Amino acid sequence: MKGKLYGIGVGPGDPELLTIKAAKILKNADIIICPKGKKGADSIALQIAREYINPRAKIKPQVFPMVFCQETLESHWNENLEEIKFDMDNGRTIAFITLGDPLLYSTYIYMLKVLKEKGYDIETVPGITSFSATASTVNLPLAEGDETLTILPLVKEDEPVEKVLRTADNIVVLKVSHDPKGLAAKLRKYGLEKNFVMISKCGHGDENITSDIGDLEEKEIPYLSTIIIKKGGQFHV
Amino acid sequence: MKGKLYGIGVGPGDPELLTIKAAKILKNADIIICPKGKKGADSIALQIAREYINPRAKIKPQVFPMVFCQETLESHWNENLEEIKFDMDNGRTIAFITLGDPLLYSTYIYMLKVLKEKGYDIETVPGITSFSATASTVNLPLAEGDETLTILPLVKEDEPVEKVLRTADNIVVLKVSHDPKGLAAKLRKYGLEKNFVMISKCGHGDENITSDIGDLEEKEIPYLSTIIIKKGGQFHV
Repeated sequence: MKGKLYGIGVGPGDPELLTIKAAKILKNADIIICPKGKKGADSIALQIAREYINPRAKIKPQVFPMVFCQETLESHWNENLEEIKFDMDNGRTIAFITLGDPLLYSTYIYMLKVLKEKGYDIETVPGITSFSATASTVNLPLAEGDETLTILPLVKEDEPVEKVLRTADNIVVLKVSHDPKGLAAKLRKYGLEKNFVMISKCGHGDENITSDIGDLEEKEIPYLSTIIIKKGGQFHV
Repeated sequence: MKGKLYGIGVGPGDPELLTIKAAKILKNADIIICPKGKKGADSIALQIAREYINPRAKIKPQVFPMVFCQETLESHWNENLEEIKFDMDNGRTIAFITLGDPLLYSTYIYMLKVLKEKGYDIETVPGITSFSATASTVNLPLAEGDETLTILPLVKEDEPVEKVLRTADNIVVLKVSHDPKGLAAKLRKYGLEKNFVMISKCGHGDENITSDIGDLEEKEIPYLSTIIIKKGGQFHV
Protein backbone atom coordinates (compact mmCIF):
# COMPACT_ATOMS: atom_id res chain seq x y z
CA MET A 1 0.00 0.00 0.00
CA LYS A 2 1.28 3.43 -0.89
CA GLY A 3 1.88 6.03 1.80
CA LYS A 4 0.57 9.54 2.15
CA LEU A 5 2.19 12.96 2.03
CA TYR A 6 0.89 15.82 4.15
CA GLY A 7 1.97 19.37 3.30
CA ILE A 8 1.79 21.14 6.65
CA GLY A 9 1.85 24.89 7.23
CA VAL A 10 3.48 25.57 10.60
CA GLY A 11 2.79 29.33 10.57
CA PRO A 12 5.38 32.09 10.79
CA GLY A 13 7.07 31.56 14.16
CA ASP A 14 5.00 31.07 17.32
CA PRO A 15 4.55 27.29 17.84
CA GLU A 16 1.06 27.97 19.27
CA LEU A 17 -0.02 29.21 15.84
CA LEU A 18 0.03 25.68 14.45
CA THR A 19 -3.46 24.33 13.87
CA ILE A 20 -4.84 21.46 15.90
CA LYS A 21 -4.94 19.42 12.68
CA ALA A 22 -1.25 20.07 11.95
CA ALA A 23 -0.25 19.04 15.49
CA LYS A 24 -2.27 15.79 15.21
CA ILE A 25 -0.63 14.84 11.91
CA LEU A 26 2.87 15.63 13.19
CA LYS A 27 2.22 13.38 16.18
CA ASN A 28 1.50 10.42 13.90
CA ALA A 29 3.78 10.89 10.90
CA ASP A 30 6.60 8.37 10.30
CA ILE A 31 8.83 10.86 8.54
CA ILE A 32 9.16 14.65 8.80
CA ILE A 33 10.64 16.45 5.80
CA CYS A 34 12.00 19.85 6.76
CA PRO A 35 13.23 22.14 4.02
CA LYS A 36 16.18 24.46 4.50
CA GLY A 37 18.12 26.89 2.36
CA LYS A 38 21.54 25.24 2.61
CA LYS A 39 23.34 22.23 4.05
CA GLY A 40 24.25 22.68 7.70
CA ALA A 41 21.67 25.46 8.22
CA ASP A 42 18.90 25.09 10.77
CA SER A 43 15.38 24.45 9.49
CA ILE A 44 13.21 27.24 10.90
CA ALA A 45 10.06 25.22 10.20
CA LEU A 46 11.50 22.37 12.29
CA GLN A 47 12.30 24.70 15.19
CA ILE A 48 8.65 25.85 15.20
CA ALA A 49 7.12 22.38 14.87
CA ARG A 50 9.56 20.34 16.96
CA GLU A 51 7.47 20.08 20.15
CA TYR A 52 4.60 18.42 18.25
CA ILE A 53 6.65 15.81 16.40
CA ASN A 54 6.54 12.17 17.46
CA PRO A 55 9.93 11.40 19.07
CA ARG A 56 10.06 8.16 17.08
CA ALA A 57 9.60 9.93 13.72
CA LYS A 58 12.57 10.14 11.37
CA ILE A 59 13.48 13.75 10.62
CA LYS A 60 14.85 14.27 7.13
CA PRO A 61 16.18 17.72 6.24
CA GLN A 62 16.08 18.52 2.53
CA VAL A 63 18.03 21.34 0.93
CA PHE A 64 16.10 23.68 -1.36
CA PRO A 65 18.81 26.16 -2.33
CA MET A 66 17.82 29.81 -2.68
CA VAL A 67 19.58 30.37 -5.99
CA PHE A 68 18.39 31.54 -9.38
CA CYS A 69 20.13 28.82 -11.40
CA GLN A 70 17.32 26.63 -12.72
CA GLU A 71 19.65 23.65 -13.20
CA THR A 72 20.91 23.66 -9.61
CA LEU A 73 17.36 24.07 -8.34
CA GLU A 74 15.93 21.22 -10.36
CA SER A 75 18.73 18.85 -9.53
CA HIS A 76 18.14 19.41 -5.77
CA TRP A 77 14.37 19.30 -6.17
CA ASN A 78 14.43 16.04 -8.11
CA GLU A 79 16.73 14.41 -5.60
CA ASN A 80 14.36 15.46 -2.80
CA LEU A 81 11.40 14.23 -4.80
CA GLU A 82 12.96 10.79 -5.33
CA GLU A 83 13.53 10.49 -1.58
CA ILE A 84 9.86 11.28 -0.89
CA LYS A 85 8.62 8.91 -3.59
CA PHE A 86 10.76 6.09 -2.18
CA ASP A 87 9.26 6.54 1.29
CA MET A 88 5.71 6.82 -0.08
CA ASP A 89 6.19 3.68 -2.16
CA ASN A 90 7.15 1.97 1.10
CA GLY A 91 3.86 2.95 2.73
CA ARG A 92 5.18 5.72 4.97
CA THR A 93 3.21 8.69 6.26
CA ILE A 94 5.25 11.81 5.56
CA ALA A 95 4.77 15.36 6.81
CA PHE A 96 6.45 18.04 4.68
CA ILE A 97 6.56 21.11 6.92
CA THR A 98 6.65 24.65 5.53
CA LEU A 99 6.71 28.14 7.05
CA GLY A 100 3.42 30.05 6.84
CA ASP A 101 0.90 28.51 4.43
CA PRO A 102 2.05 25.66 2.14
CA LEU A 103 0.31 27.03 -0.96
CA LEU A 104 1.70 30.56 -0.79
CA TYR A 105 5.21 30.76 -2.28
CA SER A 106 6.58 27.59 -0.69
CA THR A 107 8.92 24.92 -2.06
CA TYR A 108 6.24 22.36 -1.25
CA ILE A 109 4.31 23.52 -4.32
CA TYR A 110 6.82 21.94 -6.70
CA MET A 111 6.61 18.59 -4.86
CA LEU A 112 2.83 18.77 -4.80
CA LYS A 113 2.54 19.35 -8.55
CA VAL A 114 4.78 16.44 -9.55
CA LEU A 115 3.40 13.95 -7.03
CA LYS A 116 -0.24 14.89 -7.75
CA GLU A 117 0.36 14.25 -11.43
CA LYS A 118 1.78 10.82 -10.62
CA GLY A 119 -1.32 9.92 -8.61
CA TYR A 120 0.18 9.94 -5.11
CA ASP A 121 -2.09 10.58 -2.12
CA ILE A 122 -1.47 14.13 -0.87
CA GLU A 123 -3.28 16.33 1.64
CA THR A 124 -2.44 19.96 2.31
CA VAL A 125 -3.06 21.50 5.74
CA PRO A 126 -3.25 25.31 5.62
CA GLY A 127 -1.14 27.45 7.94
CA ILE A 128 -1.28 30.93 9.45
CA THR A 129 0.36 33.35 7.01
CA SER A 130 3.10 35.76 8.02
CA PHE A 131 0.85 38.70 7.18
CA SER A 132 -2.08 37.54 9.33
CA ALA A 133 0.33 37.06 12.24
CA THR A 134 1.98 40.43 11.58
CA ALA A 135 -1.37 42.23 11.52
CA SER A 136 -2.42 40.51 14.76
CA THR A 137 0.84 41.40 16.51
CA VAL A 138 0.25 45.11 15.92
CA ASN A 139 -3.59 44.96 15.99
CA LEU A 140 -3.76 46.44 12.50
CA PRO A 141 -6.61 45.58 10.08
CA LEU A 142 -5.40 44.07 6.80
CA ALA A 143 -8.51 45.09 4.86
CA GLU A 144 -12.06 46.30 5.57
CA GLY A 145 -15.30 46.75 3.66
CA ASP A 146 -14.71 46.88 -0.10
CA GLU A 147 -10.94 47.38 0.11
CA THR A 148 -8.58 45.05 -1.73
CA LEU A 149 -5.46 43.42 -0.33
CA THR A 150 -2.57 42.51 -2.61
CA ILE A 151 0.29 40.18 -1.67
CA LEU A 152 3.51 41.12 -3.45
CA PRO A 153 6.79 39.20 -3.27
CA LEU A 154 9.40 41.95 -3.63
CA VAL A 155 11.38 42.01 -6.88
CA LYS A 156 14.13 44.40 -8.00
CA GLU A 157 12.29 45.62 -11.11
CA ASP A 158 10.38 48.90 -10.65
CA GLU A 159 7.23 48.39 -12.71
CA PRO A 160 5.65 45.31 -11.04
CA VAL A 161 6.10 46.89 -7.60
CA GLU A 162 4.87 50.33 -8.63
CA LYS A 163 1.84 48.83 -10.36
CA VAL A 164 0.77 47.28 -7.06
CA LEU A 165 1.51 50.47 -5.08
CA ARG A 166 -0.67 52.39 -7.54
CA THR A 167 -3.62 50.00 -7.76
CA ALA A 168 -4.11 48.19 -4.42
CA ASP A 169 -5.76 49.58 -1.29
CA ASN A 170 -3.68 47.53 1.12
CA ILE A 171 -0.43 45.78 0.29
CA VAL A 172 1.57 43.02 1.93
CA VAL A 173 5.20 42.89 0.82
CA LEU A 174 6.99 39.58 1.29
CA LYS A 175 10.72 38.88 0.75
CA VAL A 176 11.50 42.46 1.80
CA SER A 177 15.20 41.64 2.16
CA HIS A 178 15.46 41.28 -1.64
CA ASP A 179 15.48 45.07 -2.12
CA PRO A 180 14.63 47.15 0.98
CA LYS A 181 16.27 50.35 -0.35
CA GLY A 182 14.41 50.08 -3.66
CA LEU A 183 11.12 49.60 -1.82
CA ALA A 184 11.84 52.60 0.43
CA ALA A 185 12.42 54.80 -2.64
CA LYS A 186 9.09 53.69 -4.13
CA LEU A 187 7.25 54.29 -0.85
CA ARG A 188 8.62 57.86 -0.84
CA LYS A 189 7.69 58.31 -4.52
CA TYR A 190 4.05 57.41 -3.78
CA GLY A 191 3.88 59.32 -0.48
CA LEU A 192 3.55 56.11 1.52
CA GLU A 193 6.67 56.49 3.68
CA LYS A 194 4.56 56.82 6.86
CA ASN A 195 1.93 54.26 5.88
CA PHE A 196 3.68 50.99 6.61
CA VAL A 197 4.73 48.67 9.36
CA MET A 198 7.40 45.99 9.07
CA ILE A 199 7.86 42.98 11.32
CA SER A 200 11.00 40.92 11.14
CA LYS A 201 10.99 37.38 12.60
CA CYS A 202 7.36 37.60 13.74
CA GLY A 203 6.76 35.34 16.74
CA HIS A 204 10.45 34.47 17.13
CA GLY A 205 12.54 35.48 20.14
CA ASP A 206 14.24 38.30 18.25
CA GLU A 207 11.10 39.79 16.65
CA ASN A 208 11.46 43.44 15.59
CA ILE A 209 8.76 45.96 14.65
CA THR A 210 9.26 49.29 12.88
CA SER A 211 7.38 51.99 10.96
CA ASP A 212 10.53 54.02 10.28
CA ILE A 213 11.47 54.32 6.59
CA GLY A 214 15.05 55.00 7.71
CA ASP A 215 15.30 51.38 8.86
CA LEU A 216 14.50 50.18 5.32
CA GLU A 217 17.07 52.58 3.90
CA GLU A 218 19.92 51.97 6.33
CA LYS A 219 19.57 48.74 8.28
CA GLU A 220 20.22 45.10 7.43
CA ILE A 221 16.79 43.51 6.84
CA PRO A 222 16.41 39.86 7.98
CA TYR A 223 15.10 37.24 5.57
CA LEU A 224 11.86 36.72 7.52
CA SER A 225 10.44 40.24 7.19
CA THR A 226 6.90 41.22 6.19
CA ILE A 227 5.56 44.71 5.47
CA ILE A 228 1.94 45.87 5.58
CA ILE A 229 1.22 49.07 3.65
CA LYS A 230 -2.12 50.85 4.13
CA LYS A 231 -3.03 53.65 1.78
CA GLY A 232 -5.88 54.65 4.10
CA GLY A 233 -3.80 56.59 6.59
CA GLN A 234 -0.59 57.16 8.45
CA PHE A 235 0.04 55.09 11.52
CA HIS A 236 2.62 54.44 14.14
CA VAL A 237 3.08 51.31 16.21
CA MET B 1 -8.46 45.54 37.38
CA LYS B 2 -9.63 45.80 33.80
CA GLY B 3 -10.23 42.68 31.76
CA LYS B 4 -8.86 41.63 28.41
CA LEU B 5 -10.41 41.12 25.00
CA TYR B 6 -9.10 38.47 22.62
CA GLY B 7 -10.12 38.64 18.97
CA ILE B 8 -9.96 35.01 17.86
CA GLY B 9 -9.99 33.72 14.29
CA VAL B 10 -11.69 30.31 14.24
CA GLY B 11 -10.92 29.63 10.57
CA PRO B 12 -13.46 28.91 7.84
CA GLY B 13 -15.24 25.73 8.97
CA ASP B 14 -13.25 22.69 10.10
CA PRO B 15 -12.87 22.90 13.92
CA GLU B 16 -9.40 21.30 13.60
CA LEU B 17 -8.22 24.42 11.75
CA LEU B 18 -8.31 26.45 14.95
CA THR B 19 -4.83 27.22 16.23
CA ILE B 20 -3.56 25.75 19.47
CA LYS B 21 -3.41 29.30 20.84
CA ALA B 22 -7.07 29.96 19.99
CA ALA B 23 -8.17 26.71 21.67
CA LYS B 24 -6.22 27.55 24.84
CA ILE B 25 -7.78 31.00 25.10
CA LEU B 26 -11.30 29.67 24.50
CA LYS B 27 -10.76 27.15 27.29
CA ASN B 28 -10.03 29.95 29.77
CA ALA B 29 -12.26 32.84 28.69
CA ASP B 30 -15.11 33.97 30.98
CA ILE B 31 -17.24 35.26 28.14
CA ILE B 32 -17.52 34.29 24.48
CA ILE B 33 -18.89 36.90 22.10
CA CYS B 34 -20.20 35.33 18.91
CA PRO B 35 -21.33 37.62 16.13
CA LYS B 36 -24.26 36.75 13.89
CA GLY B 37 -26.10 38.42 11.04
CA LYS B 38 -29.53 38.53 12.62
CA LYS B 39 -31.44 37.75 15.79
CA GLY B 40 -32.42 34.08 16.03
CA ALA B 41 -29.82 32.99 13.47
CA ASP B 42 -27.09 30.52 14.42
CA SER B 43 -23.57 31.84 14.86
CA ILE B 44 -21.38 29.87 12.45
CA ALA B 45 -18.24 30.89 14.35
CA LEU B 46 -19.79 29.43 17.52
CA GLN B 47 -20.60 26.13 15.79
CA ILE B 48 -16.94 25.84 14.73
CA ALA B 49 -15.46 26.80 18.11
CA ARG B 50 -17.97 25.19 20.46
CA GLU B 51 -15.97 22.08 21.37
CA TYR B 52 -13.09 24.21 22.68
CA ILE B 53 -15.16 26.55 24.85
CA ASN B 54 -15.13 26.21 28.63
CA PRO B 55 -18.57 24.83 29.62
CA ARG B 56 -18.73 27.42 32.41
CA ALA B 57 -18.15 30.36 30.04
CA LYS B 58 -21.05 32.68 29.32
CA ILE B 59 -21.89 32.74 25.62
CA LYS B 60 -23.17 36.10 24.41
CA PRO B 61 -24.41 36.33 20.83
CA GLN B 62 -24.22 39.81 19.33
CA VAL B 63 -26.08 40.87 16.21
CA PHE B 64 -24.05 42.64 13.51
CA PRO B 65 -26.70 43.15 10.84
CA MET B 66 -25.62 42.78 7.22
CA VAL B 67 -27.29 45.95 5.98
CA PHE B 68 -26.01 49.02 4.21
CA CYS B 69 -27.75 51.57 6.45
CA GLN B 70 -24.94 53.22 8.41
CA GLU B 71 -27.31 54.31 11.19
CA THR B 72 -28.66 50.79 11.85
CA LEU B 73 -25.13 49.41 11.77
CA GLU B 74 -23.71 51.93 14.19
CA SER B 75 -26.58 51.62 16.63
CA HIS B 76 -26.07 47.83 16.81
CA TRP B 77 -22.28 48.16 16.94
CA ASN B 78 -22.37 50.70 19.74
CA GLU B 79 -24.77 48.59 21.78
CA ASN B 80 -22.44 45.60 21.34
CA LEU B 81 -19.47 47.75 22.24
CA GLU B 82 -21.09 48.96 25.49
CA GLU B 83 -21.73 45.33 26.49
CA ILE B 84 -18.06 44.45 25.91
CA LYS B 85 -16.82 47.54 27.75
CA PHE B 86 -19.05 46.74 30.74
CA ASP B 87 -17.61 43.22 31.00
CA MET B 88 -14.03 44.44 30.54
CA ASP B 89 -14.50 47.09 33.20
CA ASN B 90 -15.57 44.24 35.47
CA GLY B 91 -12.29 42.40 34.89
CA ARG B 92 -13.60 39.69 32.59
CA THR B 93 -11.61 37.81 29.97
CA ILE B 94 -13.57 37.94 26.75
CA ALA B 95 -13.06 36.01 23.50
CA PHE B 96 -14.65 37.63 20.43
CA ILE B 97 -14.75 34.83 17.84
CA THR B 98 -14.75 35.52 14.11
CA LEU B 99 -14.77 33.36 10.97
CA GLY B 100 -11.45 33.15 9.13
CA ASP B 101 -8.92 35.76 10.24
CA PRO B 102 -10.06 38.58 12.58
CA LEU B 103 -8.22 41.34 10.68
CA LEU B 104 -9.56 40.52 7.22
CA TYR B 105 -13.04 41.99 6.66
CA SER B 106 -14.49 41.08 10.06
CA THR B 107 -16.84 42.96 12.37
CA TYR B 108 -14.21 42.61 15.08
CA ILE B 109 -12.20 45.37 13.39
CA TYR B 110 -14.68 48.05 14.45
CA MET B 111 -14.59 46.88 18.08
CA LEU B 112 -10.80 46.72 18.00
CA LYS B 113 -10.42 50.29 16.73
CA VAL B 114 -12.70 51.86 19.32
CA LEU B 115 -11.43 49.83 22.30
CA LYS B 116 -7.76 50.30 21.31
CA GLU B 117 -8.30 54.06 21.21
CA LYS B 118 -9.79 53.93 24.71
CA GLY B 119 -6.74 52.07 26.03
CA TYR B 120 -8.31 48.66 26.65
CA ASP B 121 -6.10 45.56 26.64
CA ILE B 122 -6.66 43.67 23.39
CA GLU B 123 -4.88 40.77 21.74
CA THR B 124 -5.68 39.42 18.30
CA VAL B 125 -5.10 35.76 17.45
CA PRO B 126 -4.83 35.14 13.70
CA GLY B 127 -6.96 32.49 11.99
CA ILE B 128 -6.78 30.35 8.86
CA THR B 129 -8.34 32.31 5.99
CA SER B 130 -11.06 30.89 3.76
CA PHE B 131 -8.74 31.14 0.76
CA SER B 132 -5.88 29.18 2.38
CA ALA B 133 -8.37 26.46 3.35
CA THR B 134 -9.94 26.50 -0.12
CA ALA B 135 -6.56 26.16 -1.82
CA SER B 136 -5.61 23.29 0.51
CA THR B 137 -8.89 21.46 -0.10
CA VAL B 138 -8.21 21.33 -3.85
CA ASN B 139 -4.37 21.21 -3.59
CA LEU B 140 -4.09 24.34 -5.72
CA PRO B 141 -1.21 26.84 -5.27
CA LEU B 142 -2.39 30.38 -4.44
CA ALA B 143 0.78 32.04 -5.75
CA GLU B 144 4.33 31.04 -6.72
CA GLY B 145 7.61 32.78 -7.48
CA ASP B 146 7.11 36.45 -8.32
CA GLU B 147 3.35 36.22 -8.84
CA THR B 148 0.98 38.52 -6.95
CA LEU B 149 -2.21 37.49 -5.15
CA THR B 150 -5.06 39.97 -4.75
CA ILE B 151 -7.97 39.53 -2.35
CA LEU B 152 -11.15 41.16 -3.67
CA PRO B 153 -14.46 41.40 -1.82
CA LEU B 154 -17.01 41.28 -4.64
CA VAL B 155 -18.92 44.49 -5.39
CA LYS B 156 -21.60 45.18 -8.00
CA GLU B 157 -19.66 47.96 -9.73
CA ASP B 158 -17.72 46.86 -12.83
CA GLU B 159 -14.53 48.93 -12.67
CA PRO B 160 -13.05 47.87 -9.30
CA VAL B 161 -13.55 44.19 -10.18
CA GLU B 162 -12.23 44.52 -13.74
CA LYS B 163 -9.18 46.45 -12.54
CA VAL B 164 -8.21 43.49 -10.36
CA LEU B 165 -8.94 40.94 -13.12
CA ARG B 166 -6.67 42.96 -15.43
CA THR B 167 -3.76 43.59 -13.05
CA ALA B 168 -3.38 40.64 -10.63
CA ASP B 169 -1.75 37.26 -11.38
CA ASN B 170 -3.94 35.33 -8.95
CA ILE B 171 -7.20 36.52 -7.45
CA VAL B 172 -9.29 35.48 -4.48
CA VAL B 173 -12.89 36.66 -4.64
CA LEU B 174 -14.76 36.86 -1.34
CA LYS B 175 -18.47 37.60 -0.84
CA VAL B 176 -19.20 35.88 -4.17
CA SER B 177 -22.93 35.75 -3.37
CA HIS B 178 -23.10 39.57 -3.74
CA ASP B 179 -23.07 39.31 -7.55
CA PRO B 180 -22.24 35.86 -9.00
CA LYS B 181 -23.81 36.57 -12.42
CA GLY B 182 -21.89 39.84 -12.75
CA LEU B 183 -18.64 38.09 -11.86
CA ALA B 184 -19.34 35.30 -14.39
CA ALA B 185 -19.80 37.91 -17.14
CA LYS B 186 -16.47 39.53 -16.26
CA LEU B 187 -14.68 36.16 -16.18
CA ARG B 188 -15.98 35.51 -19.71
CA LYS B 189 -14.98 39.01 -20.84
CA TYR B 190 -11.38 38.42 -19.75
CA GLY B 191 -11.23 34.80 -21.00
CA LEU B 192 -11.02 33.43 -17.45
CA GLU B 193 -14.17 31.28 -17.47
CA LYS B 194 -12.13 28.07 -17.14
CA ASN B 195 -9.51 29.48 -14.77
CA PHE B 196 -11.36 29.41 -11.47
CA VAL B 197 -12.49 27.17 -8.69
CA MET B 198 -15.22 28.00 -6.17
CA ILE B 199 -15.76 26.37 -2.81
CA SER B 200 -18.94 27.00 -0.88
CA LYS B 201 -19.02 26.22 2.86
CA CYS B 202 -15.41 25.02 2.93
CA GLY B 203 -14.92 22.48 5.74
CA HIS B 204 -18.64 22.33 6.60
CA GLY B 205 -20.76 19.20 6.14
CA ASP B 206 -22.37 20.54 2.97
CA GLU B 207 -19.18 21.79 1.26
CA ASN B 208 -19.44 22.14 -2.52
CA ILE B 209 -16.67 22.56 -5.12
CA THR B 210 -17.09 23.67 -8.73
CA SER B 211 -15.12 25.02 -11.70
CA ASP B 212 -18.21 25.34 -13.89
CA ILE B 213 -19.06 28.91 -14.90
CA GLY B 214 -22.65 27.76 -15.42
CA ASP B 215 -23.01 27.32 -11.67
CA LEU B 216 -22.16 31.00 -11.13
CA GLU B 217 -24.66 31.99 -13.80
CA GLU B 218 -27.57 29.78 -12.81
CA LYS B 219 -27.33 28.45 -9.26
CA GLU B 220 -28.00 29.99 -5.87
CA ILE B 221 -24.58 30.82 -4.36
CA PRO B 222 -24.30 30.38 -0.56
CA TYR B 223 -22.97 33.25 1.59
CA LEU B 224 -19.78 31.37 2.54
CA SER B 225 -18.29 31.00 -0.95
CA THR B 226 -14.74 31.74 -2.03
CA ILE B 227 -13.31 31.75 -5.55
CA ILE B 228 -9.68 31.36 -6.60
CA ILE B 229 -8.85 32.64 -10.09
CA LYS B 230 -5.50 31.78 -11.66
CA LYS B 231 -4.48 33.54 -14.84
CA GLY B 232 -1.67 31.01 -15.33
CA GLY B 233 -3.79 28.24 -16.81
CA GLN B 234 -7.03 26.36 -17.10
CA PHE B 235 -7.73 23.76 -14.49
CA HIS B 236 -10.39 21.37 -13.39
CA VAL B 237 -10.90 19.92 -9.94
